[in-house]
Amino acid sequence: MTNENQTPADTPSPGASHVQTGIGTNYYTEELHGPLEFFSMDTFELEEGETLRNCTIAYATFGELNDAKDNAVLFPHMYSGTSKDMEMYISEDAAVDPNEYFVILPNQIGNGLSMSPHNTPPPYGQGDFPKVRISDDIRAQHRLVTEEFGIDELQLVLGWSMGAQQTYEWAVRYPEMVKRAAPIGGTARNPVISRLLVDALTDAIKSDPNWDEGYYSDPRDVRRGLQRHARIWAIIGASDALYRQEKWRDVGFSSLSDFMHAFWDEWFLPMDPNNLLCMAWKWQNADVSRITDGDLEAALNRIEAKTYVMPFEQDMFFTVESCQHEEEMIPDSELRSIPTPWGHFGMLGLDPTDKEFIEERIQELLDESV
Amino acid sequence: MTNENQTPADTPSPGASHVQTGIGTNYYTEELHGPLEFFSMDTFELEEGETLRNCTIAYATFGELNDAKDNAVLFPHMYSGTSKDMEMYISEDAAVDPNEYFVILPNQIGNGLSMSPHNTPPPYGQGDFPKVRISDDIRAQHRLVTEEFGIDELQLVLGWSMGAQQTYEWAVRYPEMVKRAAPIGGTARNPVISRLLVDALTDAIKSDPNWDEGYYSDPRDVRRGLQRHARIWAIIGASDALYRQEKWRDVGFSSLSDFMHAFWDEWFLPMDPNNLLCMAWKWQNADVSRITDGDLEAALNRIEAKTYVMPFEQDMFFTVESCQHEEEMIPDSELRSIPTPWGHFGMLGLDPTDKEFIEERIQELLDESV
Repeated sequence: MTNENQTPADTPSPGASHVQTGIGTNYYTEELHGPLEFFSMDTFELEEGETLRNCTIAYATFGELNDAKDNAVLFPHMYSGTSKDMEMYISEDAAVDPNEYFVILPNQIGNGLSMSPHNTPPPYGQGDFPKVRISDDIRAQHRLVTEEFGIDELQLVLGWSMGAQQTYEWAVRYPEMVKRAAPIGGTARNPVISRLLVDALTDAIKSDPNWDEGYYSDPRDVRRGLQRHARIWAIIGASDALYRQEKWRDVGFSSLSDFMHAFWDEWFLPMDPNNLLCMAWKWQNADVSRITDGDLEAALNRIEAKTYVMPFEQDMFFTVESCQHEEEMIPDSELRSIPTPWGHFGMLGLDPTDKEFIEERIQELLDESV
Repeated sequence: MTNENQTPADTPSPGASHVQTGIGTNYYTEELHGPLEFFSMDTFELEEGETLRNCTIAYATFGELNDAKDNAVLFPHMYSGTSKDMEMYISEDAAVDPNEYFVILPNQIGNGLSMSPHNTPPPYGQGDFPKVRISDDIRAQHRLVTEEFGIDELQLVLGWSMGAQQTYEWAVRYPEMVKRAAPIGGTARNPVISRLLVDALTDAIKSDPNWDEGYYSDPRDVRRGLQRHARIWAIIGASDALYRQEKWRDVGFSSLSDFMHAFWDEWFLPMDPNNLLCMAWKWQNADVSRITDGDLEAALNRIEAKTYVMPFEQDMFFTVESCQHEEEMIPDSELRSIPTPWGHFGMLGLDPTDKEFIEERIQELLDESV
């Protein structure tokens, strides 16, 4: 098991080649995103019918699994993210204390650290990477949790955005395993406006003449498409209030242009376009009701977890209203909206008060007896 | 003067050639957007320094100017619009009764009916059309109103989106002339998030490989860019609730795809990209405080009009908050928010209750004694 003191050199890495090889990018490395561990599956059949062979899931862990194996927390990540991005919520002083909990942070299939378009050889590499669903990730994570660790009970599953989509999929698909759930800034079925947003983001990347159906030789060649994609995020991922009040100044950006480049472009431009598109399709098609013949209420009724539904108050595509609409169908749930001008991106905690607010809610949820 | 019974053939048209010539589009015609009248200025110097020669403003009128010349209403239009689009608010049964008021609907410079990139010969045609500001339009409209009609008092100036920007510019620049003002879904200084939106829309059009710096030979060649631009509007111009509740079904669209094509694409794809970009730059840079050295409060304090500030409740870029922020600086003003799932596009009145709500507010404003 990895913990925060472990170095990359200590990590047994059956899948390390997946991380460190790959075309034209040095972004997806353990140096930047590790230390990591790897769980490999000889074959993994996807819901859409293709089979990934030697499918490796990268993950990080914090803390120790206790003897009863009943102190685990699972914390999947968002679009364009890795396990590293959510580590800020795991420490003695943060939401989830690794002295008490064993925290697993799985990397999504396609995120660049787990098996992904950019690190997969033909016939499934780059533009040929198969369509992956949220449910595929959750089934892979289920194998990791049960086969690798023998865990049959998760004290908490939580996540932001696509992490919320994964949280819902866990709570619906394995209701008996999930004791508490905190979907943050995300829904169980992707709202239509969010589907349209994915269309626009996808189109922005593919609009680059160097996109070449995903067979670019260097992801940097697609930088104009990546920037176009980043600048749509700069609008819809934030809020009117953030810009009107120039809240970006409080966190160290010197001008609007600096914020555009040093935050939005900086976030997205080092990434591999095919990896982003793999996650985007997953996000777009997320729907927990696929296992209840499209009946969302029936799906959400399966949830046994004590659930805090936590939208961001000014989120434009996972709105409070759409989160509340689902919350009302979840048996043991509460709506806990997060007030912040950062909108959907409040989770990054650039304003420390946002992080504190979220941590307090998570602490309350962990304190709930279930 | 034109009225609604006048046919295009009756119209004296010194500028008709401006309307009917132009490259590769039969969208900007009097058949579709008229009947129109034309006001020509031999020379018109723009704030940015260039001079438009033979600059023609197309406009429509309804009703008759009374002898006292004190029954005029001015109703400028929004981005991508023409005078035709707001005619729905002018009738015996609508907000502004032409039996009582003389209504002037000016077309923006660059909108395709007034002097515009697509109908201007070299050296100022297409990609060479000079930068035009909201203040240029308002100075041109002021000449039309005063020189052509001898009007020195407007009972009401109202408009939606860029029409609201023009309304504010009128009320700030000519405060003694404007008795009542109704800026609907727009602000006096363009909010930063709205500036970023214009960047994304502009970039969407220019991303088309056929854009060619504005020297395309047929606007249809730029249809991919126009569609990319339309599909960003489909997100940010509407609302989560519109899509979640499928309100588009109520107004005759058969599927989400049908709504995308038959509403959003249908709206924008017939247009000329350079015309849109001319208006977009104007929208992006709108700021009434240019005449008060950037002091917005000083500019808004100039307003003498009784003002109803009317944002749409779910508008994502001209938010209630940003409209209210300005309303608080306007001496004789009230905030009258418009509740509709149609967001920024509520003004089109696809849901008749939105149109009724807006008309009731306009009637209340017209009934205010000033």
